[in-house]
Amino acid sequence: MQGDRSCASVQGGETTMRRGDEMTDARMIGVDWGTTSFRAALMDRDGAILDHGSGRDGLLSVTDRDFETVLERAIGRWDPSCGLPVIASGMVTSRTGWVETPYLACPAGPDDLAGALTALTTARGRHIAFVTGLSYRNPDGAPDVMRGEETQIAGLGLAGLRLAVMPGTHSKWVRIADGRITAFRSAMTGDAFAALKDHTVLKLTTADWTPSPTAFAAGVAIGAAEGGAGLLGKLFRQRAGSLMGDFPASETAERLSGLMIGTEIAEARSFAPDVDGPVVIVGGEALAARYGAALDVLGIAHETAPASAAFAGQFRIATAAGLV
Amino acid sequence: MQGDRSCASVQGGETTMRRGDEMTDARMIGVDWGTTSFRAALMDRDGAILDHGSGRDGLLSVTDRDFETVLERAIGRWDPSCGLPVIASGMVTSRTGWVETPYLACPAGPDDLAGALTALTTARGRHIAFVTGLSYRNPDGAPDVMRGEETQIAGLGLAGLRLAVMPGTHSKWVRIADGRITAFRSAMTGDAFAALKDHTVLKLTTADWTPSPTAFAAGVAIGAAEGGAGLLGKLFRQRAGSLMGDFPASETAERLSGLMIGTEIAEARSFAPDVDGPVVIVGGEALAARYGAALDVLGIAHETAPASAAFAGQFRIATAAGLV
Repeated sequence: MQGDRSCASVQGGETTMRRGDEMTDARMIGVDWGTTSFRAALMDRDGAILDHGSGRDGLLSVTDRDFETVLERAIGRWDPSCGLPVIASGMVTSRTGWVETPYLACPAGPDDLAGALTALTTARGRHIAFVTGLSYRNPDGAPDVMRGEETQIAGLGLAGLRLAVMPGTHSKWVRIADGRITAFRSAMTGDAFAALKDHTVLKLTTADWTPSPTAFAAGVAIGAAEGGAGLLGKLFRQRAGSLMGDFPASETAERLSGLMIGTEIAEARSFAPDVDGPVVIVGGEALAARYGAALDVLGIAHETAPASAAFAGQFRIATAAGLV
Repeated sequence: MQGDRSCASVQGGETTMRRGDEMTDARMIGVDWGTTSFRAALMDRDGAILDHGSGRDGLLSVTDRDFETVLERAIGRWDPSCGLPVIASGMVTSRTGWVETPYLACPAGPDDLAGALTALTTARGRHIAFVTGLSYRNPDGAPDVMRGEETQIAGLGLAGLRLAVMPGTHSKWVRIADGRITAFRSAMTGDAFAALKDHTVLKLTTADWTPSPTAFAAGVAIGAAEGGAGLLGKLFRQRAGSLMGDFPASETAERLSGLMIGTEIAEARSFAPDVDGPVVIVGGEALAARYGAALDVLGIAHETAPASAAFAGQFRIATAAGLV
């Protein structure tokens, strides 16, 4: 996607960015601000990244709600005169973020998001436009929400009818029609996995995590069986199986990981039975590989997209809003 | 079931028992020793309880594997001369217990358990017979285990083909044919509930637990929908629903409780589709009431059995073994 022309250095959670002489081409600043992470990019008129940086200044680390100080420390040197528009997305617009914005209902794409930006001018005169998250109600009327993923999807520019999976703490399966999100389904996979691994009887055997693609694949198959039903029983059987000597206790963590991801995939298949093409995996390298392996076990075609599409999405939305 | 002729007093986790003049009728001592609880009963030739006590001397609290000291502190005064047989059941026969015994395969009932007792004579000459747990493999060959519940079921003396649910950390659904356990299915309901409630994003709204039968019933219906499938998505929607204002955040804990129990019940129905009569709930009062309410929501007939059937089961097994 965009090429990086300079480096960012991150030390001890402090975000610092080196600047090059491309500064004169700069047209906007993108900020992807999550619960535990902060990333920012300086972009030119084509959305190419001139400079970027990331750090651990996630929302949880901001004290006294002093978001501005954290932001300025990261991007101030790029634009001391506050002349560039800043586009921010992610959990920064949630209840625990800087500005809480209402969810936009699906279907929604870059143009809709551009029309729903929330503007803020800081005390020092910096103009920030916040991209809001999306909500969706399934046919039963049950609600779902996302914040940040909509901007990543906007950055991918996928054409046609596609299904994307965005693995993580709260994985998202997203139906996309010509770049617009028409429906999505979240699964508490990563969050539940960590809780079950460390805070149930399974912790007795998940403390030592021995990598094992075979054990992972076995877990995926078990999780996906019965259309993903029976999870509470399957979880206990990961304890029983180790007690009965069916598999080494050291395999439990990999089996549990596979079980959860296999369950998630089976749940999502009933969500999008009509999508044909390969599932687009949008995630960090390690997690994308794990989901790719799980989809392989289940014979589901897939391809991998860059996890860092957020800046491209911000550029697309800013362009649609006439900010660049 | 048995009548209690005297009282036990428990203070600060220390087990103390008052003795009456029925001591001369005593024929056996039953010990129900779990991970976090210890209960003991002195019984006569008919299995009636002459004296009993309970305390917090669960297996986890035993240091240096000095199980004998804990046992003697509880029952020594009943039988200082070590003349009575002691029958012990529960997690005391697990890997982390006093004597690890191999699981007995289903089908199994009181006679089978009597034939599989493990004898131990302590240094001071007390004779203990340990009741072992059961294993079961479902039609797919997947394993399941129980320790302690088999003795409770033996104590119920259920005739005909019945289905019992034993709610708890690791709930058990048990098929019983004329008193013998023919199959069972565990679900990690209570264990997973606690982990999810306290260690995922749901903890943000489960900290304040406001009792609400309506919210609980809503959770049960959601959990049981789709045959119990879709749990990872349903979990996230308990967060999304509170964010979208569909229900007050204070209802989240009740909804989560209902969701987990509803899921467990739906999972178990596919396990025992051929059992007609009311489901027998075997559990402590509060949990039995909660499961009864959940079964009501789903229109499933049920009845409640005493949770403390363990001593009756021990007596039945001891009798079958010729120890009384």
